[in-house]
This record gives sequence, C-alpha cells and structure tokens, in this order.
Amino acid sequence: MKFSISKDSFQQAIQQVQHVVSARTTLAILSNVLLRAREGVLELTTTDLDVGVTCSVPAEVEEEGATTLPARRLATIVRELPSEDIDISVDEKNVASIRSGPSFFKVLGLTSEEFPALPRFEGAREFRMDQQLLRDCLKKTSYAISTDETRYVLNGILFSFKNNTLTMVATDGRRLAMVEQEIEFPQSQEVDIIVPTKAVNELSRLLSDTGDVIIRVTNSQVGFDFGDGLLISKLIDGNYPNYRQVIPGEAKERIALEREVFLKAISRVSLLASEKSNSVKFQFSAGQVEIVAQSPDIGEAREILAINYKGPAITIAFNPEFAMAPLRNLSADEVTLHLIDEISPGVLRTGSSFLYVLMPMRVNS
Amino acid sequence: MKFSISKDSFQQAIQQVQHVVSARTTLAILSNVLLRAREGVLELTTTDLDVGVTCSVPAEVEEEGATTLPARRLATIVRELPSEDIDISVDEKNVASIRSGPSFFKVLGLTSEEFPALPRFEGAREFRMDQQLLRDCLKKTSYAISTDETRYVLNGILFSFKNNTLTMVATDGRRLAMVEQEIEFPQSQEVDIIVPTKAVNELSRLLSDTGDVIIRVTNSQVGFDFGDGLLISKLIDGNYPNYRQVIPGEAKERIALEREVFLKAISRVSLLASEKSNSVKFQFSAGQVEIVAQSPDIGEAREILAINYKGPAITIAFNPEFAMAPLRNLSADEVTLHLIDEISPGVLRTGSSFLYVLMPMRVNS
Repeated sequence: MKFSISKDSFQQAIQQVQHVVSARTTLAILSNVLLRAREGVLELTTTDLDVGVTCSVPAEVEEEGATTLPARRLATIVRELPSEDIDISVDEKNVASIRSGPSFFKVLGLTSEEFPALPRFEGAREFRMDQQLLRDCLKKTSYAISTDETRYVLNGILFSFKNNTLTMVATDGRRLAMVEQEIEFPQSQEVDIIVPTKAVNELSRLLSDTGDVIIRVTNSQVGFDFGDGLLISKLIDGNYPNYRQVIPGEAKERIALEREVFLKAISRVSLLASEKSNSVKFQFSAGQVEIVAQSPDIGEAREILAINYKGPAITIAFNPEFAMAPLRNLSADEVTLHLIDEISPGVLRTGSSFLYVLMPMRVNS
Repeated sequence: MKFSISKDSFQQAIQQVQHVVSARTTLAILSNVLLRAREGVLELTTTDLDVGVTCSVPAEVEEEGATTLPARRLATIVRELPSEDIDISVDEKNVASIRSGPSFFKVLGLTSEEFPALPRFEGAREFRMDQQLLRDCLKKTSYAISTDETRYVLNGILFSFKNNTLTMVATDGRRLAMVEQEIEFPQSQEVDIIVPTKAVNELSRLLSDTGDVIIRVTNSQVGFDFGDGLLISKLIDGNYPNYRQVIPGEAKERIALEREVFLKAISRVSLLASEKSNSVKFQFSAGQVEIVAQSPDIGEAREILAINYKGPAITIAFNPEFAMAPLRNLSADEVTLHLIDEISPGVLRTGSSFLYVLMPMRVNS
C-alpha cells in the first residue's frame, strides 16, 4: 500500500472520523483507523462497535491496499507535519513509513483483517432529506436528551417517520423538545427509531451546509450517507414514551417575546438563582414581565422587560437553564410562550414546526 | 458609598485582581474584593494572605466609603451587565445595589473592617526597572521553576540584586534558567530574595508594555508597584542553592541553531518518544544534526537539520519538553548550544544575558 496525499485533506478526513475512537478501549484495534487505498481515493473508517464513521478523500494511490494505524497518534503526527505533501507507504507487516519534508515517521499498525466490518444496509427503509435541515432539527432538540442512564430509551432522539413527516423528539422528563419536518416517503416505510446521543453528536458535526443525506434504517441499525461520508449507529432498543400526551391543550395566554432579549435577561438574572431552588420567577402583568431570582445568602436580581401582554397577572417559575436552552438553539427573532396557569407546563413555540414543553417549578410567594 | 463607573474599566480592574482569590478558602472575607471609593477613584484589593493585588480605576464617586463583595460573583455580574453605565450604592449593612440599564442586582457584602490590611513597605530597599524588561526576564525563567513542594526554596524565582545587576534564576534540579539584567542601585541595597510561583504568575499577567515598576523589598515581603496597581507577596524563607556551580565550564562545541526550526523539529520527533524513557537523541555530525525518537511498541521518528557543525560526532539525549521550554519562551532567531561531551550538561545561550543548563539523559546506543 502506497499513496501520496495533501496534508490539509488528510487532516480534515482524520478529524471527521477520530471522534468515534474512544480513549479507553479494551480492543486495541478499536483505537486504530482503517485506511483503505484504491484508485484515486483513500477511505478512512473508525468504529467503537456502536457507532462507525467512514469518509473518503482524494489521494494519489500508487499501490492499493489496507491497514490500520493508531487514530489519535496519526492525527497528532499529521497535524505537526512540516510540508503539505505527505507520502505514506505500508509494508506487509503493517509498518507505515510517513515522509513529509525533512520528517520521517515509522508507525506500527495492525492488520486490516482484524478491523470489525461495518453493517450492511440491504433491504433497508430509505429516506432522503436536506443535510442542513437535519442539522437544524438536531440543534433544536438534542439539548433536551436525558443523560440519566437508567432511562436508556430517553438517551437519544426519537426519529418518527409517519404521514410524510419526520418528527424528532428529545426529553428528560422535565422538558421536551419536538420538531416536525415534512419529507416524502411511501407509507410502507413508516417507522420509529431512537438514535443514541453519541450518534446524534457525531451527526451534528458531520452534516454540512449543502447536499442531501440518505437515511437508511434496519431493525437494529441506522446509516446516514452523505456521499463522501457515512455514519452508522446501533439503535436504542425500546419503546419511546407517548410524548403527545405531555403536550398541554389549548393555551390561555400566548405571549410574543424577543428571543435574544429574553435569553440575555434570564441569563443575567439566573446569576443570583440559589443553588438549592435553582429557579427563576417570571411575573407577567399588563405590558411587562419581571424576571426575578433570589438567593438568601447572596442577594437578588431583577429585570423588567416591556412586552405585549394584556392578560391577568401570572407568576410562574422555571429552571433557568431549561428556559434558556431552546432560546440558545433557535434562530427565529421571536418566540411565543403559551401559558395556561401557574402550575401547568409552559410551551415555547416558533412557527408551526417547533415546540418545547417546560414543567414549572414550585413558587414560594 | 455610592459611585458610577464604566463597565469596561470596572471589568478590567476586577480581572486584574480576581486571580488572587482562591476558589476554596476557609476565611469568607478572602473570597471578597475590597472596594474603596474616594474622590474620582475606585480602588480594588484582593488577597489570599500570601499574595495581594491592588488596582485603581477612575470612577465618579458621589459618596466615599468602603465595602467588600464576593469577587467571582461580582466579576460574573459585571461581565453580563447590559449597559456601559453602572451605578453602585452600598448601604451601611454592606448590601450593594447594582444598576445597569434594565438590570438590578442586590449583592450582600461584608464589612471592609474585616479585610486583612496589606503590609507596609517602610524603610524597604527600592529598585526601579522597565516593566516590559521584567516581564521578559520572567518569561525566560519561570517555566523552569520546580513544582516539587518538598523543595520549597525552588518553588519560586531567585531575584539576586548584586553589582548593579539583577540575576534571576529558576531551577528544578534537572535544568536551570538564568537571566541577567543591568539595573542601577547603591551597593547598600544588595539583597537576594525568592519570589514564590503564585506571585511570579500574577506579576507576569500584571506587567504592561510601558512604564517602570518599583520593586520594594523588606525582610519577608516584596512589593511591585506599577503606579495604578500594586502586587505584594510574602517571600520564600530559605537559602537558594549555589546555582553558579551548576553552570559547566568552557564548552568544546558551540553550535548555532535556528530557534524556530529547531523547536519545531524537536516537537515533531518527540511525538514518538516513549513514555518510559521520554528522551530524544541529538546526533551531531559534520554539517548536520539528526533528531531521533524511538518507542518500541509504537514506532520511531527522525528528522535531519542542516547546521554549521564541524566538530566530532556527538550523540546526546535530552528530555524533549525540557529542550523545548526555553526555545518556546525566547524571542531571538538564533540560539547557541554549548556542548562538552555526551554526559556533561548542555548549555543553551542567547546573547550574553541568558543561559539554560540542561542535564543529558542516558543514551542506549
């Protein structure tokens, strides 16, 4: 195996795949990246047995072949190489010789035959959507994924393909983020899957601004195909809770809020939220909302925002982090807060496609 | 106490002093910053009882007075404030009201009477030097300070004021950095002091590009006075080892090296230094040096640099981190490496004022 490659594209490709490699692994081969050189192309693959990533870059291949090299070490070496031109040759003992300008590195690899094969997607359901759109949907939901490992079905995002709509949901039991997106597929393809957090994070990194992604689903696996890259993940095995029943009915009050202004005000006031209660009060009254946090030993913070509100006085308390998370991840200038009363969940909406249900906290008034 | 201040200058002043405040402290008052408002000036002071920092900023003072407020919390609040104009008033119970645009914060403070007084420097020895020069000297030596707490006299930089010269030395027993600087002072002022690491780090941050610093020394304290700021520190009590005897005699070989090129080559090759030996070999021969690292399980790295060397072949091994540290912190384009043989310390020099002694490691050849 022998090829030449530009430092820039090699470095970029290694960065794409190396996040999957876990720092501690019991199987030595899983620390390595699989390199496969064929005419004009170098293909890089990593896996932790749950999630796998492949990407391809142009290379001048003099001799085809495959090997595996330590992923993190290779990344560090390539980053430090002094010249844009890199020549790599690998002998039959999987010893790689890396040359670049005055630098010479010899790196011991392992045979590509030991590297676990990524699953096939024969006869899989297939969906196509815009990459940027999918990235946006992930951004609007992924912060609400539960990190509680005892509730493993919540440790990922539900992708529900139904009625020509992809509904994505994440929740940790105290808040729920949901986004709906129309995409076309035959009814026979309808399916619900739960994509685990690690795959969600990788996916968010890998999706680009242009082009489509093809999503392939089997009973236990999902694949996201970007053309020059591929992410594969095991699915979470289990039934996602019925999220529709968490969404409150008709709201009494619909309050338009400037997203940025509202976010910054909560952020400031939350500096004085007590560690114990970790709550911020929102006191809505005619024409204004006063945001208040109190911490007996430290002090208090208050901020008044002028808003278009004509309803009765309502005081509702939320966890400030949970109130800010969607505001940080949306891009709309305006959001609408739907309230019923002081003890029912609040709902944040933008357009018709996004909603966020947030449980209130008890208020001591 | 009542004053108005601009967000920018308040924030900058808090940043200057807040590093001294330790996250965990048994005395609550040491988490606080002392604020003292007098005509036209707000003075901020922090201390951990070993090191203290004071700085002054212009403020519009309506009512003079003093209080102490939680330093880190104040820093966070000020950073987040929405307007450039900040109004602060403090009542007799040390409750501070902070107003800025629509934001209002109430922060509970402690009385300034409990705040420990910084030491006085009456009858102290006094030295004056350029701030930038002192910062440069700190940069060239501080990386060599020992972090071994059992050798506490080495946990700082020796400042030796003798013969109209300030000599600064740092060592951890395996390498030694020394810089000499002419400054004028009467012989009666001659003194050796050891300035502890924390003060060295603060000082490096506080020194600016212009103006002088006045150094005041008593038996147990040192003060660095920048005009609008002051750093005070306890001295390390003990005798610094005789560093002159560590410096080897006449060198046999003097090898000119391009600092940046040499640094980058070591940095690359060191990627393959084994964790166990943690050494890099330098094989000098006519017209070149080959830098080599080997790691039995991982591989090896080699790089050849063309240099002006006419002496006999010498192979000497150094800890790569220790070889790189001075190269990173110097600014000269060229450094000179002085060698005697394969087992004597190497000496790195720039100009006549800086030298760095580095113990070689055993070579398996």
